[in-house]
Amino acid sequence: MKTHPYADSIVSLIREFERLPGVGRRTAERFAFYILKLNGDDALKLALAISEVKEKIKRCSACCNLTDNDPCKICASHGRDRNTICVVEQPSDVFTIEKIGRYHGLYHVLMGSLSPLKGIMPENLNMAELYNRVKNGGIEEIIIATDSDTDGETTAQYIAKFLKPLNVKVTRLASGIPVGATLEFIDEATILKAFEGRIEEEVYE
Amino acid sequence: MKTHPYADSIVSLIREFERLPGVGRRTAERFAFYILKLNGDDALKLALAISEVKEKIKRCSACCNLTDNDPCKICASHGRDRNTICVVEQPSDVFTIEKIGRYHGLYHVLMGSLSPLKGIMPENLNMAELYNRVKNGGIEEIIIATDSDTDGETTAQYIAKFLKPLNVKVTRLASGIPVGATLEFIDEATILKAFEGRIEEEVYE
Repeated sequence: MKTHPYADSIVSLIREFERLPGVGRRTAERFAFYILKLNGDDALKLALAISEVKEKIKRCSACCNLTDNDPCKICASHGRDRNTICVVEQPSDVFTIEKIGRYHGLYHVLMGSLSPLKGIMPENLNMAELYNRVKNGGIEEIIIATDSDTDGETTAQYIAKFLKPLNVKVTRLASGIPVGATLEFIDEATILKAFEGRIEEEVYE
Repeated sequence: MKTHPYADSIVSLIREFERLPGVGRRTAERFAFYILKLNGDDALKLALAISEVKEKIKRCSACCNLTDNDPCKICASHGRDRNTICVVEQPSDVFTIEKIGRYHGLYHVLMGSLSPLKGIMPENLNMAELYNRVKNGGIEEIIIATDSDTDGETTAQYIAKFLKPLNVKVTRLASGIPVGATLEFIDEATILKAFEGRIEEEVYE
């Protein structure tokens, strides 16, 4: 007679952990046993953080990023350049760019990229909101920072075309060889892009 | 002016995920954004599973494993050999052995291993409970399946000595070369153990 060796509530917890991205059975088990070893309060902190985030998080009415307060910290900040909008796919992209600490404009979060194959059309993204922000005036440049995969490129193309009637400057982050990379390991498409986008080498004397 | 780009409740959730074993900042961020993308009910399932497990799980009064019901499924099962107890360190070890499906006796979960350096002494483990089970009679063999690291070996030695007055057969899982391993990559200690534990090769004709 074979019995499942875990208690039912442990099995459910393992299953829930297994649904997290990149988490397999073994990792989910480790997480579950870690939770079991914590004292009650510490374990409940994670449960609480999950319910809180689902309860509190809303969309910033300006940039469409996820936020506790509307407008979000970046849109509400007085220290940002309000003439530039950097368009990204995901909230995590905002974080990536902010970590570098060199961009001081505003953002616009599309919440995905166009993908006709997956049925993601302009109306499923925050495109109309972007159009309205530009139309309301005061924006001098839109920097498109979508991914450089097919969907990201399609999205960039779409935005450029879509905003054309508004006569705003639309730029795209440069494609090319990553800093520190060995040419040998770079794919052809990237090398081609790097050729197309080549700039004159400055001479330091 | 630098603002933290994430909403406070997202930051708390990332911090909580970061405390899980082996989870760094980036993975914690991925988990948090995964939770944010789920619909409310699905996200709350994980929160609920965590609070339930902390609420329901207790110790089996027989084998000391974690369980919803006392006695646990294995101790309550009629299909198990009640004369043999396999002693393991962790609840996850029970799972590992059950997965193989060849051991049909009972278990005893110590909830750790002796480690004088970390201050883990016999009274911090479920040693007295093991002693009482053997003392109450009907047990013919104790199979020690603690880890084969220093703490696991110390624990195995301690158990053997501790149970000696009760005149029960105490065995230890064999140490040796893992099946399928190349000798070249095996450490000296394991090879020595394998020499000591060598058995006569059977001749199949």
